[in-house]
Amino acid sequence: MTEETKTATTTISKTRLEILFDGVFAIAMTILVLEIKTPELSDRHSISEMAQALREQVGTIFSYLLSFTVLGIMWYRHNYLYRHFHRITAGMFALHILMLASAAFFPFCAALMGRYPTNLLTMVIYSGCIMIYNWASLASWLVAKRTDSFSPDFAPSTYHRIWRRTLRGGIVLTILFFMCIFNAWTR
Amino acid sequence: MTEETKTATTTISKTRLEILFDGVFAIAMTILVLEIKTPELSDRHSISEMAQALREQVGTIFSYLLSFTVLGIMWYRHNYLYRHFHRITAGMFALHILMLASAAFFPFCAALMGRYPTNLLTMVIYSGCIMIYNWASLASWLVAKRTDSFSPDFAPSTYHRIWRRTLRGGIVLTILFFMCIFNAWTR
Amino acid sequence: MTEETKTATTTISKTRLEILFDGVFAIAMTILVLEIKTPELSDRHSISEMAQALREQVGTIFSYLLSFTVLGIMWYRHNYLYRHFHRITAGMFALHILMLASAAFFPFCAALMGRYPTNLLTMVIYSGCIMIYNWASLASWLVAKRTDSFSPDFAPSTYHRIWRRTLRGGIVLTILFFMCIFNAWTR
Amino acid sequence: MTEETKTATTTISKTRLEILFDGVFAIAMTILVLEIKTPELSDRHSISEMAQALREQVGTIFSYLLSFTVLGIMWYRHNYLYRHFHRITAGMFALHILMLASAAFFPFCAALMGRYPTNLLTMVIYSGCIMIYNWASLASWLVAKRTDSFSPDFAPSTYHRIWRRTLRGGIVLTILFFMCIFNAWTR
Repeated sequence: MTEETKTATTTISKTRLEILFDGVFAIAMTILVLEIKTPELSDRHSISEMAQALREQVGTIFSYLLSFTVLGIMWYRHNYLYRHFHRITAGMFALHILMLASAAFFPFCAALMGRYPTNLLTMVIYSGCIMIYNWASLASWLVAKRTDSFSPDFAPSTYHRIWRRTLRGGIVLTILFFMCIFNAWTR
Repeated sequence: MTEETKTATTTISKTRLEILFDGVFAIAMTILVLEIKTPELSDRHSISEMAQALREQVGTIFSYLLSFTVLGIMWYRHNYLYRHFHRITAGMFALHILMLASAAFFPFCAALMGRYPTNLLTMVIYSGCIMIYNWASLASWLVAKRTDSFSPDFAPSTYHRIWRRTLRGGIVLTILFFMCIFNAWTR
Repeated sequence: MTEETKTATTTISKTRLEILFDGVFAIAMTILVLEIKTPELSDRHSISEMAQALREQVGTIFSYLLSFTVLGIMWYRHNYLYRHFHRITAGMFALHILMLASAAFFPFCAALMGRYPTNLLTMVIYSGCIMIYNWASLASWLVAKRTDSFSPDFAPSTYHRIWRRTLRGGIVLTILFFMCIFNAWTR
Repeated sequence: MTEETKTATTTISKTRLEILFDGVFAIAMTILVLEIKTPELSDRHSISEMAQALREQVGTIFSYLLSFTVLGIMWYRHNYLYRHFHRITAGMFALHILMLASAAFFPFCAALMGRYPTNLLTMVIYSGCIMIYNWASLASWLVAKRTDSFSPDFAPSTYHRIWRRTLRGGIVLTILFFMCIFNAWTR
């Protein structure tokens, strides 16, 4: 068995993981809207009644926009990582599943944020979900380095730049996460 | 760092944004159907009872067809823009997220339209959502021009033609939007 | 403007329509499962109670399998048409939107079939939805012929074979549809 | 009609089946989250009340993680099979539809697992669904062999390795399935 054949039998298709990844993000983004409920009006023509019903959902609509943006940023950042991968090993796949599980869990976090934005536990869960995504992302970057899975033309400077940026994000999110926990605890 | 490497590190994959975009549209189109509720019949075999239950949902079914068509037209028009892009810059991505947030919000607009077609606020929201999509679309076109992100073989005449068409659409939608607001206000 | 440029500006990307099409089918297939409701058990450990709850949903589960198969066959047949298209004109796109609107409407038909399999109106709607899909499919085949949108290596014999098969399907479905209407009427 | 033309008219596009497959998995994975319900709190700010509401859903959240992982493993394993296929025949497509029907059914199994993890019938259905997927997967492997649908550079040793692994999985799942049935029966 040549080296190339061996590689082919121990890694998965990069294109297909891309479709799965983009698919999960597209769905997670789109089902956010299911949290915004159609109001029940007693007078079908009443503008003021509908305006009132929508005002009650202003938190959910704000959470929709925020969470859509957060998922958009997650997806955007994944682009910068993913393009440098030459192959996807089993370890990198496992970490991608963890990333996807966080992203697919996000509509629930968004629903909590929409309904209970002032509850401190909401902030813990919301920031925790993003934090897990970010650390899994960093870990997949690390594993790619360990298993030598980068493209041949990959510059070490790029490695360090993305590493620093993702690490910085991870640290900020972790501090935020523990501040939320601390706040929730001492309340 | 060569010019090409720089480009590669400041733009995202055109193919992947395409999958995300098409994915969000496919889902937004398909979850429109979730608004059409299975009727609750007291007599399972009664044709007249089911016909009656469906007649009550005729607004929702009409809104389904209308909104499916609107999303189809949005998607169709995006094709004409997108094919001329050579690369996707961060600004263009941000505008695409705004476009996707409008498109993913559309099932909610469709639900309002289905339940309360005669409420003037429904028209304000429905036309407002399409209007935001259209302006974001025009802005991404403008940003592509500013950041020199068109294909090398891109003809200026094509730029102006698509610009005029999208602008016209934007103006019509904005007039419609403000007419709806005006109507709702003076009611 | 050369012929090729003109073609490029009046047709849409075949690959993108493929993603939209496959996306809508994937979602329509998967949300069929949302009709099967988690039972509410008074005794969480009771096997007989859950078995009873599932027996009550046997129609929905059967409809799930049937509708999944129907969508699978629709998708399968589309493969044979689509591969011969060289380009997608506006008319073909409009017909594809009609096909997709039928396919995305199918989960509602499946829900009716699951809940009210013995109601004649269910059969009218279920067969009607497949029938519309089939005629739209045939029309897109015809329009492709009219607008000369087939691949250069496309054999006329293939055209006639697929035409006959789709026409036959359309006729069978239309007869079925009118038999259902007739039955419902005379009941 | 040459051999190649004949092949083209009796098989479907491998790329498109890939998109459909990955799409169904992406959606099945993402709609798992819809089972986790937003809690209804009497005091919007109460941390303890939300913590309590989430504790009641700990089974659902655990089932979410488990089922996401199971779907991830299914998808991962499909990669190893699928890459060796040179073409997709009608029989292989039918088996893929069975695989997809199992995968799309999985959110229902996950919902049962989340709500009634201690009910023996849940285990029967959950393991049964994975078992059907696995046997359909093995059958598609067998049919590919029979119809000579492997890539030209496909090594027989790879065939036997994947065959053994999938068979082993199938046997383990079947034993598990019948143990669950036996347990449920003798209870």
